[in-house]
Amino acid sequence: MAVQTIIKDEIKNLSFVLNKPLDVSFEQRPKPTLQDPHDVLVAINYTGICGSDVHYWQHGAIGHFVVREPMVLGHESAGTVVEAGAAVTHLRPGDRVALEPGYPCRRCADCRGGRYNLCEAMAFAATPPHHGTLTGLWTAPADFCYKLPDGVSLQEGALVEPLAVAVHIVKQADVKPGQSVVVMGAGPVGVLCAAVARAYGASKVVSVDIVPSKLDFARGLAATHTYLSRRIAPEDNAKAIRDHADLPRGADVVIDASGAELSIQTSLHVVRMGGTYVQGGMGKSDITFPIMAMCLKEVTAKGSFRYGPGDYDLAIELVASGRVDVKRLVSQVVPFEQAEAAFKKVKEGEVIKILIAGPNEKL
Amino acid sequence: MAVQTIIKDEIKNLSFVLNKPLDVSFEQRPKPTLQDPHDVLVAINYTGICGSDVHYWQHGAIGHFVVREPMVLGHESAGTVVEAGAAVTHLRPGDRVALEPGYPCRRCADCRGGRYNLCEAMAFAATPPHHGTLTGLWTAPADFCYKLPDGVSLQEGALVEPLAVAVHIVKQADVKPGQSVVVMGAGPVGVLCAAVARAYGASKVVSVDIVPSKLDFARGLAATHTYLSRRIAPEDNAKAIRDHADLPRGADVVIDASGAELSIQTSLHVVRMGGTYVQGGMGKSDITFPIMAMCLKEVTAKGSFRYGPGDYDLAIELVASGRVDVKRLVSQVVPFEQAEAAFKKVKEGEVIKILIAGPNEKL
Amino acid sequence: MAVQTIIKDEIKNLSFVLNKPLDVSFEQRPKPTLQDPHDVLVAINYTGICGSDVHYWQHGAIGHFVVREPMVLGHESAGTVVEAGAAVTHLRPGDRVALEPGYPCRRCADCRGGRYNLCEAMAFAATPPHHGTLTGLWTAPADFCYKLPDGVSLQEGALVEPLAVAVHIVKQADVKPGQSVVVMGAGPVGVLCAAVARAYGASKVVSVDIVPSKLDFARGLAATHTYLSRRIAPEDNAKAIRDHADLPRGADVVIDASGAELSIQTSLHVVRMGGTYVQGGMGKSDITFPIMAMCLKEVTAKGSFRYGPGDYDLAIELVASGRVDVKRLVSQVVPFEQAEAAFKKVKEGEVIKILIAGPNEKL
Amino acid sequence: MAVQTIIKDEIKNLSFVLNKPLDVSFEQRPKPTLQDPHDVLVAINYTGICGSDVHYWQHGAIGHFVVREPMVLGHESAGTVVEAGAAVTHLRPGDRVALEPGYPCRRCADCRGGRYNLCEAMAFAATPPHHGTLTGLWTAPADFCYKLPDGVSLQEGALVEPLAVAVHIVKQADVKPGQSVVVMGAGPVGVLCAAVARAYGASKVVSVDIVPSKLDFARGLAATHTYLSRRIAPEDNAKAIRDHADLPRGADVVIDASGAELSIQTSLHVVRMGGTYVQGGMGKSDITFPIMAMCLKEVTAKGSFRYGPGDYDLAIELVASGRVDVKRLVSQVVPFEQAEAAFKKVKEGEVIKILIAGPNEKL
Repeated sequence: MAVQTIIKDEIKNLSFVLNKPLDVSFEQRPKPTLQDPHDVLVAINYTGICGSDVHYWQHGAIGHFVVREPMVLGHESAGTVVEAGAAVTHLRPGDRVALEPGYPCRRCADCRGGRYNLCEAMAFAATPPHHGTLTGLWTAPADFCYKLPDGVSLQEGALVEPLAVAVHIVKQADVKPGQSVVVMGAGPVGVLCAAVARAYGASKVVSVDIVPSKLDFARGLAATHTYLSRRIAPEDNAKAIRDHADLPRGADVVIDASGAELSIQTSLHVVRMGGTYVQGGMGKSDITFPIMAMCLKEVTAKGSFRYGPGDYDLAIELVASGRVDVKRLVSQVVPFEQAEAAFKKVKEGEVIKILIAGPNEKL
Repeated sequence: MAVQTIIKDEIKNLSFVLNKPLDVSFEQRPKPTLQDPHDVLVAINYTGICGSDVHYWQHGAIGHFVVREPMVLGHESAGTVVEAGAAVTHLRPGDRVALEPGYPCRRCADCRGGRYNLCEAMAFAATPPHHGTLTGLWTAPADFCYKLPDGVSLQEGALVEPLAVAVHIVKQADVKPGQSVVVMGAGPVGVLCAAVARAYGASKVVSVDIVPSKLDFARGLAATHTYLSRRIAPEDNAKAIRDHADLPRGADVVIDASGAELSIQTSLHVVRMGGTYVQGGMGKSDITFPIMAMCLKEVTAKGSFRYGPGDYDLAIELVASGRVDVKRLVSQVVPFEQAEAAFKKVKEGEVIKILIAGPNEKL
Repeated sequence: MAVQTIIKDEIKNLSFVLNKPLDVSFEQRPKPTLQDPHDVLVAINYTGICGSDVHYWQHGAIGHFVVREPMVLGHESAGTVVEAGAAVTHLRPGDRVALEPGYPCRRCADCRGGRYNLCEAMAFAATPPHHGTLTGLWTAPADFCYKLPDGVSLQEGALVEPLAVAVHIVKQADVKPGQSVVVMGAGPVGVLCAAVARAYGASKVVSVDIVPSKLDFARGLAATHTYLSRRIAPEDNAKAIRDHADLPRGADVVIDASGAELSIQTSLHVVRMGGTYVQGGMGKSDITFPIMAMCLKEVTAKGSFRYGPGDYDLAIELVASGRVDVKRLVSQVVPFEQAEAAFKKVKEGEVIKILIAGPNEKL
Repeated sequence: MAVQTIIKDEIKNLSFVLNKPLDVSFEQRPKPTLQDPHDVLVAINYTGICGSDVHYWQHGAIGHFVVREPMVLGHESAGTVVEAGAAVTHLRPGDRVALEPGYPCRRCADCRGGRYNLCEAMAFAATPPHHGTLTGLWTAPADFCYKLPDGVSLQEGALVEPLAVAVHIVKQADVKPGQSVVVMGAGPVGVLCAAVARAYGASKVVSVDIVPSKLDFARGLAATHTYLSRRIAPEDNAKAIRDHADLPRGADVVIDASGAELSIQTSLHVVRMGGTYVQGGMGKSDITFPIMAMCLKEVTAKGSFRYGPGDYDLAIELVASGRVDVKRLVSQVVPFEQAEAAFKKVKEGEVIKILIAGPNEKL
């Protein structure tokens, strides 16, 4: 099969670049070209902003990932295929796709064993030294581009990334129909975890946060119960959650989507004997942790990191079937030129999710 | 089937009773009689001393389990069936048995679901308010008494309890042939975990402790590598363990059998991406814990509590087949009358495992 | 706690007894009394008829289970607690319950290991030599009686048994959200499997049968697709099902709820590489089976037998939450005196599910 | 890193080619060259003969795989790296390797999901239209070449392929320490399954065959019990196996490594309630199968096809650690020129495993 293309001269590759903390610029970067017959070239339509993007913008680093060279930001994107390599069979120019933004080596034990999200050679968008997707054109292996069904919009497509994060967390939690699930934190990932848990058949889903408006949003989207966390001991918050949601033995599953120390402590006290707790949110490296509660209750605790095989497929299916209404998360869509302002809004907590249109996108 | 018995008048029911912290006495207690046709009456031959026994003796409580009435101590026992209820089919008087010392309700969701060790109505020997097995005669449901094969001695039978603890830990860890396993702590349970991990086919088993003689013992019993933990940061001990055992990616499985804060921290740094860590040892309720290491490496962390279905069966099979040589752990066997002195020796750390003969046993 | 009772003299124990094939009678049998403090006495309100009941009625035997003494028929029942033993805590007189009709030994390896449905000492209602539930009063261990929530009727309660069969099958199949499930057979268990698969999040559920009206019912209840099986080779039916439901690689899960040889053969051809096939229906002991398809596609094949831990709980939850509308299956409710006529109707295939009111129930 | 090479002119690429059924020839074929920086070039040292090789030689086809063009035979090989691509890091010229002979696409759902053996685009050596390894030089992705430790010979390295088949089967069976395993068939794969099951900790391993000398070999290698299958009904053979090995409830795991109809039928009757049966051997497409035994006993049945992630690693580890003594299987080693005679010997059943030296190998 030959290369198929609809790329035109007018597609520009304007990019939003982080030079150093709080120092960004817009740059016309060279248009990428296909290097591998399995790749496609995608014109970016919409990109969401994630907490990690904001963290790089503010601090220039996350842990040992340090931005040493100017780096294009962004990794939550949907776009339109404009060129497909000769070996690509399931996509062709014009197809609208959600972009899975991390490309593993395909050869290490983790890649071959079905856990490519753990690949040590992962090239992940907007994680230094790799550029991100707040740009005009993007090349990617075709198998990491997921065709959007007719009923799913490109704006919804940009939300598939955080939804895939939630799907991966809920898979790690192995939620079963009829179970009770407590989700600590009602930010974008937390509320999506609540929605995915419902799609997995959970009978009770309790969203917990310290911000009442976030709980309102969670209830509107998916939660069967909400609990406004109080400034009391974790054991006491845990007891109040159990009482509120009529879970005398504790919750079958607890997901921490906050990363906050008190939330994690509460998680271990709210989970039932033999239950499961998944750490999905990022926070401090080391915290005070109720280790004996984990031991004596035989809790299964798991970390969750990004997403792996099948997570994007399921995320898109959940949107397409109407089971998760990601549109509700979009507070605002702004043109590419307002990218910096959008980052500021996310930092200020004024929005749930803001989308930045691609530089070639007319709003 | 009628009740079968070989009980004789000369079998006494002398018991070793904890009245209050550090205050023990020997008492002739009434001989128990069979109440249920599924029960057996067992004359105790040998009982090992566990850290929890010593803790009750010293402090009168473990967590919220408080000794409020005088309580017979001991729960690691083997004995001889002297009477079998009418409904008992697999045991008869004269059979030598290892005693699983906890009796669950059989009716709750955990019992019915295959996790009876989590039963909230569990009656566990020498956990208040239930008496223990440092006594002459003991009644138990026959299905919690495991017949010892011909080649397994009664002294080995008393070691089945801690071996079952180790079996349960290694099952929680889901050790597979060819894997690498690091065991933090080389006390009785730690070295037995190392031995069970070998029986599960682990290729490398690294025992870690701060006492050189314990490491010597671990190496003699089962460990392929040992590492003397140093007073350095957990990350540095973890790196040294990886280097020493040639585990550049980290260990597939890490078991903490120590309960020590530094060991638990080291565990999370020594485990590989996607690996498993099991908390088997008891210690402080709350510790400083490297939660982001657990999250970002997608570690599966599990607690392990006592033992459940099949654990005693496998423990006995491992002894019978020679795969775990529990005899090596027995430092000394003392007559019943020296029970208090034996407790002192365990407390002082002078012995690996000391056995107390039953009150009717002639040494 | 003392025994609690609301039993009155007017509650009779009229029973529907199979004497020998096709020879039934109504008998006043002695009222049962509580023998164990964990038991309850239940007045039966409604009982459904199952294919196995009809088979005993016609043939007096199923496999090596032979009716040698007169036996009360029936095992799909809901009733009202009229007396609760002293040790019963979660039920009291007046509570409406669904009856799980098999009582395992609680002591064998399967019972203790969480698979009590495999217990060799199982006493199952209306499986010789055990009487069934087409009677006035029934004693049962309280933990095998499940309280119906307010919104669930006693007629729905009688449908919990076949729904629990379907729950167990779908659990064996380990259906995940987003998967495709083909269900061979659209009888009561088949359509309930389809409904449970939807509750487990399956995106496509294809019901297959040879009777168009059954497919109509399946589509109304739960199926996203239906396929009228044709008199062609299994491979060809399989290909047609794949084409019809747009499953080019085959179905993730195939459930055979028919027991028919051609359906089972088709199952193995319609399942995808690495997929799962569960045999839920009963039929011939030995059939021609495409064994190499199972081997080369690395299919996981499983049997499913009755129900186990948690299945009744989930079945009731699925009814209570409206996720499975079991009421639709009830074609007719008849008074106790018309039990034999009801059996004839089931045999003739005139009804989906017929309920027989208890002998003390006024319709 | 640059390409590293030790390739010399004197290394020839003589190959053993199947032209059509029973028509073979030796041909000097062009020397392959590295096409991908992740590949290595390997000089073949030894190649074992598999039943599938013999089947192609005799019949020119297996199922729908038909030899339409002349095809080099052989796929069980070990060799020496002579050239390593620029991107290869874990191998260098001179390294001795076992060759995993199937190369999947790395991009489909099965490859990404950890089951690359199910990849529909798999290029497998000596499965048409792909050439095999009975040749002088072979190129392969470096991650499908496994370095042999110092203590493992190249002849043992050629046995890693059938051992990996057995490892995969035993993994599918999920054998646990203490379990009982019956292996139907004592050919090369059957006896290796018995050996791997022992390495997984099985307490009883029963080899079953119709040839006494094969049972002698199985017992010498690994089996704890052997049973000479008789010309009686499968149920009766099953009962005799249970009696012989003292398995009153049946075997925990049964592996069929024969493909024979009677063996498969016996497997379903010898497995216990809730046990596991794995189909590892190839035979007739369709057989008479005791489907209701599978259903009523809730047997988990699985196919096993070739090998997947980690199987070669574990196979080499089992050889290196002495847990599986593959050398015993080698009946004879012949020079390359005697390849056709070697095929005849395998067909006649005169040998367990015969190795053919590479064309550049001096015996």
